[in-house]
Amino acid sequence: MEKPFSYSVIGTGAVGGYYGSLLQRSGKEVHFLLHSDYDHVKRHGLTIASKNGDFTLPQVNAYKNPHDLPRCDVTIVALKATANGVLPDILPYVVNKNGIILLLQNGLGQEELISAIAGVKTIVAGLCFVCSTKTGPGTICHQDYGSVLLAQFTKDNTPSGITQIMQQIAADLTTAGVTVEMEPDLIEARWRRLVWNIPFSGLTTLLQADTTHIVNSPSLQKLAKDLMYEVVEGAFALGRIIPESFIEKMIDNTQKMHPYFPSMKLDFEAGKSLELDAMYKKPLEAAATHGKRLTRIEMLYEELSFLQEKKLLC
Amino acid sequence: MEKPFSYSVIGTGAVGGYYGSLLQRSGKEVHFLLHSDYDHVKRHGLTIASKNGDFTLPQVNAYKNPHDLPRCDVTIVALKATANGVLPDILPYVVNKNGIILLLQNGLGQEELISAIAGVKTIVAGLCFVCSTKTGPGTICHQDYGSVLLAQFTKDNTPSGITQIMQQIAADLTTAGVTVEMEPDLIEARWRRLVWNIPFSGLTTLLQADTTHIVNSPSLQKLAKDLMYEVVEGAFALGRIIPESFIEKMIDNTQKMHPYFPSMKLDFEAGKSLELDAMYKKPLEAAATHGKRLTRIEMLYEELSFLQEKKLLC
Repeated sequence: MEKPFSYSVIGTGAVGGYYGSLLQRSGKEVHFLLHSDYDHVKRHGLTIASKNGDFTLPQVNAYKNPHDLPRCDVTIVALKATANGVLPDILPYVVNKNGIILLLQNGLGQEELISAIAGVKTIVAGLCFVCSTKTGPGTICHQDYGSVLLAQFTKDNTPSGITQIMQQIAADLTTAGVTVEMEPDLIEARWRRLVWNIPFSGLTTLLQADTTHIVNSPSLQKLAKDLMYEVVEGAFALGRIIPESFIEKMIDNTQKMHPYFPSMKLDFEAGKSLELDAMYKKPLEAAATHGKRLTRIEMLYEELSFLQEKKLLC
Repeated sequence: MEKPFSYSVIGTGAVGGYYGSLLQRSGKEVHFLLHSDYDHVKRHGLTIASKNGDFTLPQVNAYKNPHDLPRCDVTIVALKATANGVLPDILPYVVNKNGIILLLQNGLGQEELISAIAGVKTIVAGLCFVCSTKTGPGTICHQDYGSVLLAQFTKDNTPSGITQIMQQIAADLTTAGVTVEMEPDLIEARWRRLVWNIPFSGLTTLLQADTTHIVNSPSLQKLAKDLMYEVVEGAFALGRIIPESFIEKMIDNTQKMHPYFPSMKLDFEAGKSLELDAMYKKPLEAAATHGKRLTRIEMLYEELSFLQEKKLLC
């Protein structure tokens, strides 16, 4: 029996607040870093309205300053990727000697940046498939889904295999009620996730449409599939084989899902900056480094970049 | 000296009403087919508010029924391409024995359809570079530009050269105050025009932006150029060489133009159907027939098709 992990949460929002609360409810020691919600959470705790049952944690360990957080075994990083610039001012003060990060973020290339921060030794990426929203201070609405795919970063991008640290985190999340899978190769896991995210995050944002609109439109289902093929080609350039059947499976799954707005579309509506770098630019660069140009993804990235520029100018 | 041409105008809107009025003002015999504006125009004539000087034609030859129009030497077709389905019910009753059409429409492939209509013998295409809008019954606002490039259709798509009919129409338009150019090869003329129209009509509609926004955004100027290169590649597949310098010239011209919304964007705002078939589908098909797939143009067409579907559903 391993010594139980303690957890700190950097980014107590829709994702970090949700998984952190589940861990605390299951009996784990959890510490939350907060910013604007600090006063409210210190007084009232965290409330989760979930399709799996609502619950409140009336008392949580809340901190305003990273220097006050105890150094925990696992630091959950659940900021938007666009906010990762603050991490060098936080992580060195909160990781313990083992320096384990559980990174709950979409997109590509963030591990390279984070692994360079002092004190960080191991990064386990948690690819979340979850639909949740922060609806008020300390209040999170979990609408649907919630599974997490774990895979571990290696500096040379070779598969890590299923490590012991991954297994312990998986066990903790499973105990907390989360459906967990583990994947021996982070690069393949990231690109598989991009197969869905690249078309659906981008097209819903660009065209003001939900996922059901897109799969039900003949012209857009074709475009979504063409974008997915390009993701598969990008992965192939990096030596990862995603079978074509995976594309059909993603289309089928999306047809069965409730109509859904990905977080990029919600961020756009809310006037927040979009994770275009992690979701589009980094994959384009990774493929280009291996000699592959992904034309449609590049075009979608250019269109979204303009929408973002235009929105920020308004 | 040739016998002077008489003209009838099918589609007395922003384009047909403008050029038809200029021809009448210069002394030509002109007959206008009208629909919803008939009563107003019969009583009050046509009014042109133009940057070159406003004028009114208090009396015009106005008709509600194609059967009442006298058969003229030249039939000006200036409907939206999306309305061409009505032409088989009109043209056989209005063309004279020479069957000359002056087709004032954008995009590709309409000549093939129109040349199959009984009585049509010669089609001269007039590619208009004009910014005008119908602002009320019988009232047209001519904001800017106004030049016309003439080129003649041939069934085998070989260059027609500068024909005598083209020259007489050019002379009439010139006398009416229009800047006219003639081009011996319709296919090349159409594709040159698409070099500008394909990126700017589509991107302004898709991204709710004017032409200046697009050329001034680094990401979109790059995308516009990539789309232009694809048009050049499409033309090349059809054996027409458009030099790359033409792309730079189009970008430069657009930077010098006033901010401008192409008619597709205005049609979209007005809830009208878009000329996607003539502007995107037909060029894609023409290139595909010659073995060339135009990836970005295809993607733009799919995105615009969805926007149109969605708008029509609302």
